Amino acid sequence: MTQSVVATSPMPAEIERAIRTAGPVIDPLAAKALYAPLLADMPLGGEVIRDIAYGSDERHRLDLYLPVGASDMAPVVVFLHGGGFIRGDKDDRAAVGHYFSRHGILAILPNYRLGPRHHWPAGAEDVSAVLRWARAHVAEHGGDREHIVLAGESAGAAHVAAATLIKRFHPDEGLCIAGAFLASGVYNLELELLARDQFGIATPDPRNEAYFGTDFARYRAMSTVELVNAAPFPLAITYAELDPIQMQAQAGELFARLVTCHGFQPRIAVIRGHNHLSQVYSINSGDEALAGPLLDFVRGSQA
Amino acid sequence: MTQSVVATSPMPAEIERAIRTAGPVIDPLAAKALYAPLLADMPLGGEVIRDIAYGSDERHRLDLYLPVGASDMAPVVVFLHGGGFIRGDKDDRAAVGHYFSRHGILAILPNYRLGPRHHWPAGAEDVSAVLRWARAHVAEHGGDREHIVLAGESAGAAHVAAATLIKRFHPDEGLCIAGAFLASGVYNLELELLARDQFGIATPDPRNEAYFGTDFARYRAMSTVELVNAAPFPLAITYAELDPIQMQAQAGELFARLVTCHGFQPRIAVIRGHNHLSQVYSINSGDEALAGPLLDFVRGSQA
Repeated sequence: MTQSVVATSPMPAEIERAIRTAGPVIDPLAAKALYAPLLADMPLGGEVIRDIAYGSDERHRLDLYLPVGASDMAPVVVFLHGGGFIRGDKDDRAAVGHYFSRHGILAILPNYRLGPRHHWPAGAEDVSAVLRWARAHVAEHGGDREHIVLAGESAGAAHVAAATLIKRFHPDEGLCIAGAFLASGVYNLELELLARDQFGIATPDPRNEAYFGTDFARYRAMSTVELVNAAPFPLAITYAELDPIQMQAQAGELFARLVTCHGFQPRIAVIRGHNHLSQVYSINSGDEALAGPLLDFVRGSQA
Repeated sequence: MTQSVVATSPMPAEIERAIRTAGPVIDPLAAKALYAPLLADMPLGGEVIRDIAYGSDERHRLDLYLPVGASDMAPVVVFLHGGGFIRGDKDDRAAVGHYFSRHGILAILPNYRLGPRHHWPAGAEDVSAVLRWARAHVAEHGGDREHIVLAGESAGAAHVAAATLIKRFHPDEGLCIAGAFLASGVYNLELELLARDQFGIATPDPRNEAYFGTDFARYRAMSTVELVNAAPFPLAITYAELDPIQMQAQAGELFARLVTCHGFQPRIAVIRGHNHLSQVYSINSGDEALAGPLLDFVRGSQA
């Protein structure tokens, strides 16, 4: 992954045109509809084991996409869906599981607890619980417990960032991951609050207030960028060319602070030609804009 | 200026295609050549008074583009060219002067001291000297000394940021500006040093080492984002969609830190369809992608 990632498989021109015409929107139905025709015929991976419990809540379920053609030491990726802290489901990201599976990666797609029923730091705690489950169980399924990458998009990236960059969420035996990949997440909750006008965020904010609550005086104390205290590990931070500017600014701030204040050397890249959600739905459609750098990172990261 | 700025006058399709094909490059000759045919016939503003001395160095010269059709209280913009701290000239930005002039704005285009002959903080000091000159003299030329906006692109934005955000560079009587507009600047010198690999910056760095020197231990002490101590003032931060990722990350970090740590409420925008230099050469070509938000900001900012 170099400075700026370019899709290796060009998108169909009409999809790219539709994305550029819509601009920096977040429109789940439109993004999904754009790729539905391509994903209807998508190549599938190997066996899928569904709804393994990794905790006591009904959302504590994960799916395993077993690696195709791998030895018994396949790299492992945990991929957290997005959904603004209040929605989203692993089933809607099955294409991500199939993509990794057919490339010889053991993919773990968990659900995690959501607002308003659950509040910060439930998501980070769930990432940590999945990581503990993975270290205990991936060897039974052909995975290498020493090569686990945590990845997430949008709210999923926010949870992965919190779980990895803040030591209090690390498993007792330490973080012990091969790397983390953060796609278009939010890492500074306080910034979202104070820059609502610039970011075009509704007041009240139906996402953040459901998960982080309405005691705004506590928002800084829940802002990952202010809480970083983990030792450096391999990290990639990406955002889409047509991401809302909040995700772009937050990626820039996190990257800069990690480099200058915490000794990290993250990769950083812009996913060209995509918006916040089109980049995710493009995975396994033949468009490698986000899938390619993600796969390269999962393969290449070393603990 | 809303969250993301869209060009109000569409670029000729072949220019947009050329910019997108080249990607996030910094190529002065190519950017200039793209717009040369359009700028050859550009509409001119009013009278230009050239090479007024504002200090003792041979680079301490500024051009005045007098406002067309204005009363004697025209808004004033000071526009600092870019050039990586080591090159650049106001004559190469004449189109910017003409653009403001014909829109009824008094435009001041200064040269400023460059590396390697001069070192940090010469640029910030020169911005401050131009501001003092402007407050003393714009009324003689139809300008409103109470409505002065400082604007800069690339290294020019870096100098404007330092001169305005760090109190030690303010004139004795205070900053007293209507606002500052920062287009694609660099505000965290230490980040450029530590993230050279990610940003694709050459080692040795011919720009930064010429102006900031090679005592890297001092780089943090010359990083504007670490030195902010000014009271909030109207501010706009922009970068180009195809800017190198370093300018995008630095804009994001500066915006976030100003909002969460210093009480600012800056505007922030992506200039769509442009790279680092095409956005500048597009000014006065009929393409309003950067020119429009800049003009709106100069007109609308109030001290």
